[in-house]
Amino acid sequence: MAIEHNYLVNGYFNQAISPFDRGFAYGDGIFRTLKMANGLPKHWPQHYQKLVADCAVIGIVCPSAELLMNDLQQLFTIDEIAVAKIMITRGESEQGYAPPAITTPMRVIVKSAMRQYAETNYTEGVHLHVCETRLGVQAKLAGIKHLNRLENVMARMEWKDDTYFDGLMLNQQNDVIECTMSNIFARFNDKLLTPDLSQCGVAGITRQGIIGLAAALNISIETAQLPLNRLVEADEIIVCNSLYGAFQVHSILNTSWKPQTLAKKIRNLLTYD
Amino acid sequence: MAIEHNYLVNGYFNQAISPFDRGFAYGDGIFRTLKMANGLPKHWPQHYQKLVADCAVIGIVCPSAELLMNDLQQLFTIDEIAVAKIMITRGESEQGYAPPAITTPMRVIVKSAMRQYAETNYTEGVHLHVCETRLGVQAKLAGIKHLNRLENVMARMEWKDDTYFDGLMLNQQNDVIECTMSNIFARFNDKLLTPDLSQCGVAGITRQGIIGLAAALNISIETAQLPLNRLVEADEIIVCNSLYGAFQVHSILNTSWKPQTLAKKIRNLLTYD
Repeated sequence: MAIEHNYLVNGYFNQAISPFDRGFAYGDGIFRTLKMANGLPKHWPQHYQKLVADCAVIGIVCPSAELLMNDLQQLFTIDEIAVAKIMITRGESEQGYAPPAITTPMRVIVKSAMRQYAETNYTEGVHLHVCETRLGVQAKLAGIKHLNRLENVMARMEWKDDTYFDGLMLNQQNDVIECTMSNIFARFNDKLLTPDLSQCGVAGITRQGIIGLAAALNISIETAQLPLNRLVEADEIIVCNSLYGAFQVHSILNTSWKPQTLAKKIRNLLTYD
Repeated sequence: MAIEHNYLVNGYFNQAISPFDRGFAYGDGIFRTLKMANGLPKHWPQHYQKLVADCAVIGIVCPSAELLMNDLQQLFTIDEIAVAKIMITRGESEQGYAPPAITTPMRVIVKSAMRQYAETNYTEGVHLHVCETRLGVQAKLAGIKHLNRLENVMARMEWKDDTYFDGLMLNQQNDVIECTMSNIFARFNDKLLTPDLSQCGVAGITRQGIIGLAAALNISIETAQLPLNRLVEADEIIVCNSLYGAFQVHSILNTSWKPQTLAKKIRNLLTYD
C-alpha cells in the first residue's frame, strides 16, 4: 500500500483506522475543521479550547495541544493554504455501547484543499436553501461538534444546485438554528441576534468570535429564539464559519437583501480578509 | 502489519478504513448486529431486508445479499457461535457534507465473541436502569439503525453496575421508546404494547418478529405511546434483540415482576432457545 500523505492517525502516516474504533462504530468522537496558512492553524487557541470542551462533554480526554500542533506541522507545509480536519474519537472497544474502563483516544488529522469561494459571495452575498430536514433536540450534545452528523448530511443532500451556498436548518418549531456548515446572525436595527444553541446545533468558534466583537462593531449581540418568518424580516443576515469567516446572506426563499457592510467588517476584525 | 482475521473491509482482510470514509467522518451509514451459528447468520432474510430498507432511507445502495453472505462465510467458521456486525457506509468523499454524485458504498464485517448471558436472565428476568439521556426526535431517521449512536453511548455510560442488563430510553415527554440495545414490549392483560418508533428509536428485526407472533401467542399486539409511569403498571415486560431473543424484565426502579412465561414462549417461537 502506498503511503498516504494526506492524513495522520495518532501521529503516523499510512496508519489504518480500525473498524473497532468507536468513532467509526458509533460516531463516538468530535471534530473541527480549520484553515492552515504558513504552516499554522488559524485561530488555534479558540479551536483547541473548543476541542477540549467538546471532548469533555462526551467524556474523552483531549490530546495535548503540543501533540496536535506537532501533527499539523508534520502534515502541512509552510507554503500551502489548506484545510485541516481534526477528529478525536474515544478509541477502540469490543462490541457494545459501553466504553471500556480505560480507552485511548485516537486522533486523526486530514488534509484537504481550501475551497475557492466565488467572488460574488464577497460582493453580493450568498443564497441559502431552506432545509426540510429538521434538527432534533438533544440538550446533552447540543453545541458540540460531534461525529454524529447524519442530520447535516441529509440536509445537505436536499439541494444539488450550486447557486445555494448553504442550507438553513430549523428545529421542529420552525426556529432557525444554523446552516449545515455555518452559524447565522441576523441584524434588526442596532441589535444582532444569533440562535440559542442550548437544544441543538453546533456553536462554532467564529460565532463565538463574532459575539466577542459587539464593542468593536458598536452593536448589541444576543442569543434568541429566531423563527424563520422573523429571520426574513431582518435588516441584514450573516453566515459564518472558520474557513470563510463571514458572508452576507443575499437571499432566502423570496426575500433578498442588498449588499451591506457587516460581513466585511467581521472578516476584517477576525482577520479573514 | 499482521493480518487481522476478525474483520473484512469490502471483502478483504487487512484492509484499512480511510478517514475520508463518510461512515467515520459523519456516521453516514447503517449497521446490524447478528448471531452466527453453523457458519450462517441467524434470521438472515429479515436482517438483509432491514439492511436494504435502512440503506434506502439515507440513499445508499445496499451491497447484494450474495456479497455479504460470501463475506460472512470467509470470516466465520461453521463450528463457531459468534457475533457478526455488518456496517455499510456511503463510502469516501472529500471534505464537506455533500456526497459526491457517485459514491461506492463500503461494507465492513466485524467478528466478536458471543456474550454469555447470566442464567438468571432466563429464570428471573433482567434489571433495567432508567436512563437520564433522552432520545431526540428525528422522524427522517427514526427506526433505522444508523451509525449516529452517541445518544446510546451517552445513555450506556450512565451505569457501571453489571446488575443492570440494559437501560430504558425515554423521549423528552417521558414516553418509553426502547432500551440502549433492545426493543421493549409491555403486556396489559391480553394486549401487548410496544412503543411507536416513528419519531425516534431503532425498529429491530426481533421486535418485528414478535409483532408477527400475535396469532401464535394468542394476544393482540399494538404500537402505542407508553409513558414510564404507565409502563411500570404492566403485567409483564419483555426486552428483545437479535442476539439474545427475549428476556423478561425483572425490575425497573422500585417495581418488580415475578417470572412469567412470555419471554420463553417468544424465544421458543423465534428459535432462540
